Order: sequence, then structure tokens, then C-alpha cells
Amino acid sequence: MQVVVALLDGPQRFNALKRQIGDISQQMLTRTLKTLERDGMVERTVCATTPPQVEYALSALGRSLSEPVRQMAQWARAHLPIIHDNRRRYDERH
Amino acid sequence: MQVVVALLDGPQRFNALKRQIGDISQQMLTRTLKTLERDGMVERTVCATTPPQVEYALSALGRSLSEPVRQMAQWARAHLPIIHDNRRRYDERH
Repeated sequence: MQVVVALLDGPQRFNALKRQIGDISQQMLTRTLKTLERDGMVERTVCATTPPQVEYALSALGRSLSEPVRQMAQWARAHLPIIHDNRRRYDERH
Repeated sequence: MQVVVALLDGPQRFNALKRQIGDISQQMLTRTLKTLERDGMVERTVCATTPPQVEYALSALGRSLSEPVRQMAQWARAHLPIIHDNRRRYDERH
């Protein structure tokens, strides 16, 4: 989901995606991009630069998910403080 | 996400949840329920029956996520056939 949210802003290269998402390993991002490409959600383009560069962009199918994903991201931002409080209280009890 | 969708219908016991979700291991469902409980999304109630039974229900916070989750589930149902086609074509090329 984080990758789809990051690509809502437009095509990006691997390292730019990794920086933007932050808490994701090289291996997990590689696997997630491959899964999204296989699902037809993301298009992978090899740019004829020297050295060749790879760019990832949402496909039409991927963009059709943007509204529900945007709502989820908005919900997460609004509720993250409450969730952190809940986690702290849970950890105190367990 | 599948657990939240399953609990939208109301409180459920562990085995009923596992049957409804289907492709989830005992271990993964246990871990997911603990994470959701820690986040404050799910409430765990021990019923004073003999033997005691445990029930899981969405909290108010969990229910506040229902609309974005319902939209995602709706999107998934509508697009699953296209995704399966895309996966078949990807596997033929790779």
C-alpha cells in the first residue's frame, strides 16, 4: 500500500521510492514492486540512458485504486496518535 | 485488512474468523488479532461460559476504518479477474 501511495505523485526510480517510504528494506521493496508489476498495478520502464535507469509508475489499474488508498492514508494520518497511545497502554498491561 | 472486513459483520470467535477468511494460518490470525488489539482496533472479550470462550469485535476506532476498508474490498472484488489475467500474462513472459 505504501508503494502505491508513493507512486500517486508520479513515476519514480527505485532509490527515490525507498527514500520516500523510509522503513522498507531493499529486498521488501524489490519484492513488492515485482508483485505490483505482476498484478498489472505498476509499469516498469527501462530508460535508454547511460547507465540505463529503471522507472516505476502506476498503471491505469493502479491509478484506479488511488481513491480508496488515499482515504486509507488519510485515516492512518488522522488516527496514528490514538494508535500510538493504545499501543503504549497495551504494553503497560502486558 | 481481511480480519477487519470479516469483523464488519459483528463480533466473532477465532475459529469462525479463520473459516470466514480462509487462506490464513492459525499463527498469522493469532498475530494479526494481537496487533489489532494492541492498536486498539479490536476488543477481545472472554465470555464466562464453560469452557470460557473468547470473542473479537471491532472497537469504535476499528469501525471508523470500515468505509475505506469497504471501498478497498469492493475495488478488489471488481478488479480480481483483471489481476488474475495480468498475473497469467506476466508468468508467460517471465
